[in-house]
Amino acid sequence: MSRNDRPLILVSNDDSYQAKGLHTLMERMTLLGDVVAVSPDQPQSGMGMAITVNGAMRVYETESPVAGAKLYKCNGTPTDCVKLAMHSVLDRKPALVVTGINHGSNTAINVLYSGTMGAAFEGCAFGVPSIGFSLTDHFATDFQGAVPFVDTISRLTLESGLPQGICLNVNVPHGEPYPTEMRFVRECRGKWSDEYEKYIDPYNRPFYLLKGEFINLEPEAEDTDDWCVHHGIVSIVAEQLDRTAPPLVPAAGKLPDWLLQLAK
Amino acid sequence: MSRNDRPLILVSNDDSYQAKGLHTLMERMTLLGDVVAVSPDQPQSGMGMAITVNGAMRVYETESPVAGAKLYKCNGTPTDCVKLAMHSVLDRKPALVVTGINHGSNTAINVLYSGTMGAAFEGCAFGVPSIGFSLTDHFATDFQGAVPFVDTISRLTLESGLPQGICLNVNVPHGEPYPTEMRFVRECRGKWSDEYEKYIDPYNRPFYLLKGEFINLEPEAEDTDDWCVHHGIVSIVAEQLDRTAPPLVPAAGKLPDWLLQLAK
Repeated sequence: MSRNDRPLILVSNDDSYQAKGLHTLMERMTLLGDVVAVSPDQPQSGMGMAITVNGAMRVYETESPVAGAKLYKCNGTPTDCVKLAMHSVLDRKPALVVTGINHGSNTAINVLYSGTMGAAFEGCAFGVPSIGFSLTDHFATDFQGAVPFVDTISRLTLESGLPQGICLNVNVPHGEPYPTEMRFVRECRGKWSDEYEKYIDPYNRPFYLLKGEFINLEPEAEDTDDWCVHHGIVSIVAEQLDRTAPPLVPAAGKLPDWLLQLAK
Repeated sequence: MSRNDRPLILVSNDDSYQAKGLHTLMERMTLLGDVVAVSPDQPQSGMGMAITVNGAMRVYETESPVAGAKLYKCNGTPTDCVKLAMHSVLDRKPALVVTGINHGSNTAINVLYSGTMGAAFEGCAFGVPSIGFSLTDHFATDFQGAVPFVDTISRLTLESGLPQGICLNVNVPHGEPYPTEMRFVRECRGKWSDEYEKYIDPYNRPFYLLKGEFINLEPEAEDTDDWCVHHGIVSIVAEQLDRTAPPLVPAAGKLPDWLLQLAK
């Protein structure tokens, strides 16, 4: 295969261009195609699909720690990175967008707050098969356990594609023994306790720091992402861009009659 | 009904505590219950469901322009505002969360980038019936056309509730003649062109400003939000918090076999 026949793979994340998870993902992708990473110039965890509406966006090439891969840093959110990559950095449409490897879990409702998944959803919005990878440890230094799953899932997605408007959310349990199984599951129902730690500043005014704890509302459900990662199994959830609810949501109930009657 | 029996209604938005759309919404809600607004201290358009992970959050009461409603400003995102309201501002769980009235449309994929809808989704994550209201004009000054729909949809939602994990996204066409009809529809399939304007700074470095244009990919589909607002009709979409895709997505196709085979 000549160099120009290789698929172009865009890599991004939310932990910044200096994150080990990003470098690991870039390195693995060089085995599958031409790799360009566009990543935030500072940590952007929790940014979801936030975009910069009025600010001046800058994107500069920087030294890549991975042979054969280019690295750009951008002063925006993860979603900005993907938008700017598509517009101003890449010379052709990528065949695949991969994001991560995130330092920390993105199971369940966390997919909504995750900048790494925000970037994957944005790739999906451009009609490109997109995958977000996360390792379930915020202080992760050992990405070895994720590597075989990153390789396999990326290769299969390059080969078979994904339906329009669907991207994948892959969570890998951290630490040894490394996982040997992956499972196609759904988001676990859960919520954050949303506790804040209260402090008093030097001028006697209160301020707060987020210290929420995630609560799994169905801890016995084996077909969920959170169950998998707590049992040493890699979880794969297919996530949809369109958030329109069906009239009847399993485990939630039917929409109210006044609303259903307004349908044409 | 004594004062303490009145439902508590939390109001938020992304256009800041100074926005006319917020004040209009606060005023209408005083007809239905006790009103507390917690709103960003500066514009937060495009922040989606972004949260502040490490920053010091502050929330202060400020003068309310609406009699009978309290107003707090917060230095975080719209989603932060709802989280902090629940934790540190409100004295009981609200019966309703309403956000907006947004200055600008939040139809179709824009629901993902919208801070106003982010706040509504966050209310929904707390298990509270939640509605985001938007007027389809960024420079909106005339919210009169939205008022009857804000009143009706809020009252009906207070009365009948919503299924767990579902919130409403209401878009009102701007200007006269004011709309007389509302319709329960789905998100329109569409995308942003994501053009950027390129500039050169005084040090000869490029920077970019977002100037995307929304492209409706199914302009004839009368059962969509974008069609409605372009035909003078108020759109209501039920949006789900859980983004797990079904195995077969209408108009998109089936998930790949390799993935389906990994299901238990």
